[in-house]
Amino acid sequence: MAKIVTLEQRILKKNSEVAAENRRCFDEHGAFVVSLASSPGSGKTSLLEVALGRLRQEVAVGVIEGDVQTDNDARRIEALGLPAVQVVTNGTCHLDAQMVQGALEHVPFGQVELLFIENVGNLVCPASYDLGEHLRVVVASVTEGEDKPLKYPAMFRRSDALVLNKIDLLPYLRYDMNAARAMALQVNPTLKIFETSCVTGEGVGEFCEWILEQMARNHAA
Amino acid sequence: MAKIVTLEQRILKKNSEVAAENRRCFDEHGAFVVSLASSPGSGKTSLLEVALGRLRQEVAVGVIEGDVQTDNDARRIEALGLPAVQVVTNGTCHLDAQMVQGALEHVPFGQVELLFIENVGNLVCPASYDLGEHLRVVVASVTEGEDKPLKYPAMFRRSDALVLNKIDLLPYLRYDMNAARAMALQVNPTLKIFETSCVTGEGVGEFCEWILEQMARNHAA
Repeated sequence: MAKIVTLEQRILKKNSEVAAENRRCFDEHGAFVVSLASSPGSGKTSLLEVALGRLRQEVAVGVIEGDVQTDNDARRIEALGLPAVQVVTNGTCHLDAQMVQGALEHVPFGQVELLFIENVGNLVCPASYDLGEHLRVVVASVTEGEDKPLKYPAMFRRSDALVLNKIDLLPYLRYDMNAARAMALQVNPTLKIFETSCVTGEGVGEFCEWILEQMARNHAA
Repeated sequence: MAKIVTLEQRILKKNSEVAAENRRCFDEHGAFVVSLASSPGSGKTSLLEVALGRLRQEVAVGVIEGDVQTDNDARRIEALGLPAVQVVTNGTCHLDAQMVQGALEHVPFGQVELLFIENVGNLVCPASYDLGEHLRVVVASVTEGEDKPLKYPAMFRRSDALVLNKIDLLPYLRYDMNAARAMALQVNPTLKIFETSCVTGEGVGEFCEWILEQMARNHAA
């Protein structure tokens, strides 16, 4: 096992170096970068579709989409008339900093002040890979149950915000929102928590405002 | 990259060898083994709870639970008065054959004819690891959308059956069941597809009958 651990450490060290290069690139171009991670099907792309509709009124936005296969998600963003770059990992279970770096040449930085990076749907592996983003957001659908932060703690511990999505379905679920919030805060006491529905739009405005605030704070710093 | 690929191939080769040992162990003890994989929160444990209530009337059942953290799931199975062994992967994103082998000494084989192995919630990484199971089942909740087989094809290609779970929520979703089935069959034309609800119990009986049929066929072979 020793050799595997060493190799993993080398991979993560190399990833951190490239992530730092990405972050410098973002800062030089004045772009604020937010990553989104979640289980498959938690609604990351739907959240982006609704949030971008609001955010584009304030700032110039763009998206890097990560998927194991297909360019479905980039096409959904492009359908909004927004710049989207698709990274297909071809079986790999997460984005890494090098994949993001490879996509940066296709990002029209002059026209993008706020860049989202949507990771592969996976609550485990993406947690280990810094992409150079300024903010990390984890999305969890309320249909997945309350206990995901306890079962997949690394992702929730390393995120800045948690979006509890699909709250329009709450009337039809046995889901205890207070318990869900408590479990998330048990894993990460500083996690900012939002409750959203991409069907009704509820909560998305609050999430967008928070992102714009964080963006302003970053530019002021 | 060459070194990494070689190491990955060595890991998968070693995994296949141990999986073959597991399968021999299962066959020697006359135990039929079914693995379950899915995204986090698709309802694998809930499906087991409902299915085991039916299956235990026909055969002696047991479960190996895989989780990144917590023994929540094994406790849910034990609460039914059934033997459950928890494997905590401590951050690893999938079960492998050696983790399962390590759990086998805790399985009361004389009392278990049908053993389920519930994998970590992850649609990517578990696809690569043979555990020695006889049947592979992938579970997807209808709340995750129709296109998961196209976006995470390996898992669907390497499974024998797909359980489309949480169909009690269909009235509240925009979900096209025919499109979902077509996308799954596009990736794996021999996939057996079930539609289930663990709230109403709908479809679970059909799923259980299919497992018992496969078990009988395996014993006859």
